[in-house]
Amino acid sequence: MRDFLPADKARRERVLAVIRDRYRAHGFDEIETPVMEEYARLHAGVGGDNEKLAYNVLRRGLSGEAIERIGRDTESAADNVAQLTDLGLRYDLTVPLSRFYASHRGELPGVFRSIQIAPVWRAERPQKGRYRQFMQCDIDIIGDASARAEAELAVATLDTIDALGLHGGTIRINDRRALDWMLGTFGFADHERPGVLITIDKLDKIGVEGVAAELRERGATPAAVDAFEAFLRRPQTREHVPYGGRQIRAALPEGAPDDVVAHLAAIGEAVGAARAAADVPLVFDPFLVRGMGYYTGTIFELAHPSVSYSLGGGGRYDGMIGRFLGQDVPAVGFSIGFERIVDLVTEDEDAAAPAVVLVHERDVPLPELAAHKARLVAGGARVRLETRTKNLKALLDRATADGYTSFATLAAGQEDLELKSLG
Amino acid sequence: MRDFLPADKARRERVLAVIRDRYRAHGFDEIETPVMEEYARLHAGVGGDNEKLAYNVLRRGLSGEAIERIGRDTESAADNVAQLTDLGLRYDLTVPLSRFYASHRGELPGVFRSIQIAPVWRAERPQKGRYRQFMQCDIDIIGDASARAEAELAVATLDTIDALGLHGGTIRINDRRALDWMLGTFGFADHERPGVLITIDKLDKIGVEGVAAELRERGATPAAVDAFEAFLRRPQTREHVPYGGRQIRAALPEGAPDDVVAHLAAIGEAVGAARAAADVPLVFDPFLVRGMGYYTGTIFELAHPSVSYSLGGGGRYDGMIGRFLGQDVPAVGFSIGFERIVDLVTEDEDAAAPAVVLVHERDVPLPELAAHKARLVAGGARVRLETRTKNLKALLDRATADGYTSFATLAAGQEDLELKSLG
Repeated sequence: MRDFLPADKARRERVLAVIRDRYRAHGFDEIETPVMEEYARLHAGVGGDNEKLAYNVLRRGLSGEAIERIGRDTESAADNVAQLTDLGLRYDLTVPLSRFYASHRGELPGVFRSIQIAPVWRAERPQKGRYRQFMQCDIDIIGDASARAEAELAVATLDTIDALGLHGGTIRINDRRALDWMLGTFGFADHERPGVLITIDKLDKIGVEGVAAELRERGATPAAVDAFEAFLRRPQTREHVPYGGRQIRAALPEGAPDDVVAHLAAIGEAVGAARAAADVPLVFDPFLVRGMGYYTGTIFELAHPSVSYSLGGGGRYDGMIGRFLGQDVPAVGFSIGFERIVDLVTEDEDAAAPAVVLVHERDVPLPELAAHKARLVAGGARVRLETRTKNLKALLDRATADGYTSFATLAAGQEDLELKSLG
Repeated sequence: MRDFLPADKARRERVLAVIRDRYRAHGFDEIETPVMEEYARLHAGVGGDNEKLAYNVLRRGLSGEAIERIGRDTESAADNVAQLTDLGLRYDLTVPLSRFYASHRGELPGVFRSIQIAPVWRAERPQKGRYRQFMQCDIDIIGDASARAEAELAVATLDTIDALGLHGGTIRINDRRALDWMLGTFGFADHERPGVLITIDKLDKIGVEGVAAELRERGATPAAVDAFEAFLRRPQTREHVPYGGRQIRAALPEGAPDDVVAHLAAIGEAVGAARAAADVPLVFDPFLVRGMGYYTGTIFELAHPSVSYSLGGGGRYDGMIGRFLGQDVPAVGFSIGFERIVDLVTEDEDAAAPAVVLVHERDVPLPELAAHKARLVAGGARVRLETRTKNLKALLDRATADGYTSFATLAAGQEDLELKSLG
């Protein structure tokens, strides 16, 4: 967990403001849920591995006797935790959204497009680029099973990273149904497919040989591994190829299901029409997996030429809200990896907005000082007061580093300020 | 703890943006700290009653044996908690700020003006207007012992509530040193003063009789209670009187300490000069107490004619940072009661920014729909797609309630959109 100093915090807030503004422009509405959810809800099995990383909040008012009994009588560490806690910090924004939608469905539009911009917590081992508290920026569309939903998410996401100056982003797309069908054609049995997906997810890192070797090690059906390996060795590309039904079909084994191909193709046509660019920034990737177990259809990942890792992702999770609501509702979401993106955005502090350091002699009467500051603020400036010290240069350098663009000096009785440019 | 639906969330974010903007204009810089702090730091005695309301986070990896031993061997509930947890959710922003400043002092300006806009958590009993998670908006000045600091806080606060349309705010001011001196002149002993202050804090609610009766009940020195009661019965006013050294002196018993009166008067002169209004929005209130034990000098409270409760407050806490830093540093802060203020702010959604509902027939091809939406968004609008239903009116009413200002209908093949006003 990190402290953010002024320069970092200001950049984070600027980036968040752009994200919020673009998401809103695309018709999404922001909501907020409490950071704590009930323990049982956070551990209902939909959070995948993240459930194990939840911070649990100690139940209040437990007596020593109760604690002793819990320690003595319960069988497993998980049982202990379940009895000592009743709330936990959320580890994602999807579980809270599902709970929110189930609670407030009647007050929301039929197709609900949500924005959630908020921190989540995971008790990760400290590691470069992994934080225990980090921001997530999610958009989700609940109540629309059509490709319109995926297209709106993709266009809003691309528009947002463009607005942040990160042009050239690409969305890799696949469909869990296509993956599942494909594994079936090779001959992987239902029960082995989840494990096979975990291995395929490493294709970028360990290559075709690595995937085949790991599948054999796992004891996957040998003939299926052979067929899959042969398919992987076909000449094909994940480079930026024109995205369309024909290309999607060509990248899959023969006989791919029409509805899945049509859904994927429709997303591409819509994004292409919205972007009005010859070059649609979508790539069909038949081996894209995405970690979470709850995805049921389309899955996406956001790539950018400046980095090798993904800048976000998401997918369809049509089954999840039904677990809270008792009635299936289609849902699809896209999450921007804020912590990764914020480091890529170059400074764009509004240089037009004047930021003035008012350096006053120590003997300037406070009312004069206050009046000068008030006039500058009323004129639209951001104003920092500094008492003059011997080392004026150090003081002005510090202010320049903090984003101030001009300064003025003030002596007792002086009426007019002369603004001078900094830096 | 509450969910916020789109209309509430949008209003909250608009109010926060105004607060952030005004605070920044006055030379304050925003920082952020993690929501969790170490248990020991949250329970170091500076958080007052709030320490008891902290949510504690369960230490990870405790075995059943360890839990049993904790329950068996520890003597008090507090000891149990201290062993079961290592982190807690912050209950205020002042303790984290003190820790932040002690950690990062070398990277901050000599006089550091901080903004913190962030949630805090308290395990309050559910009660109207009390929330377990709520936002605090704090500004603090660290490293300035002069009245310049109080004046900057007061002016920034008044400017901020003005910018929110809440004109007519008043800041009530007192000084803990004046209070302490005054209690001494009446004859209250040092050890009974904290209890006396708790009673005085109820003056607005229970009146002079109530205060005198409660002090007698508490067993406070009878002669001191008599002298205090006589003083309280003097003809005087807490109405909006001209704020100045003479008035402050007149409101206190004879012989008030010069330095305290001068400090209080200087704040008023500076705020008066900054506001350039004949009517300085400050009131000296010799009986203002403020609950927190850590205040050492000036204390403030923000009042507004539309409500009977305070909208914020703060004060000087020169001793606190020294506890973390081992070296005394002057500090003073002002916190706006965001949850109270947000309910008073009337809607000010920017009506000039077009918000369009695009109602399309079900058979409009998705690429056409996506292209129309993209053009509207590129033109600066906020756009929501809606599939036409039989009850168009219900659909448009819903959108109007959600802040949309115009709509257009779209049939397949239609090229131009005609925007019509909503509502």
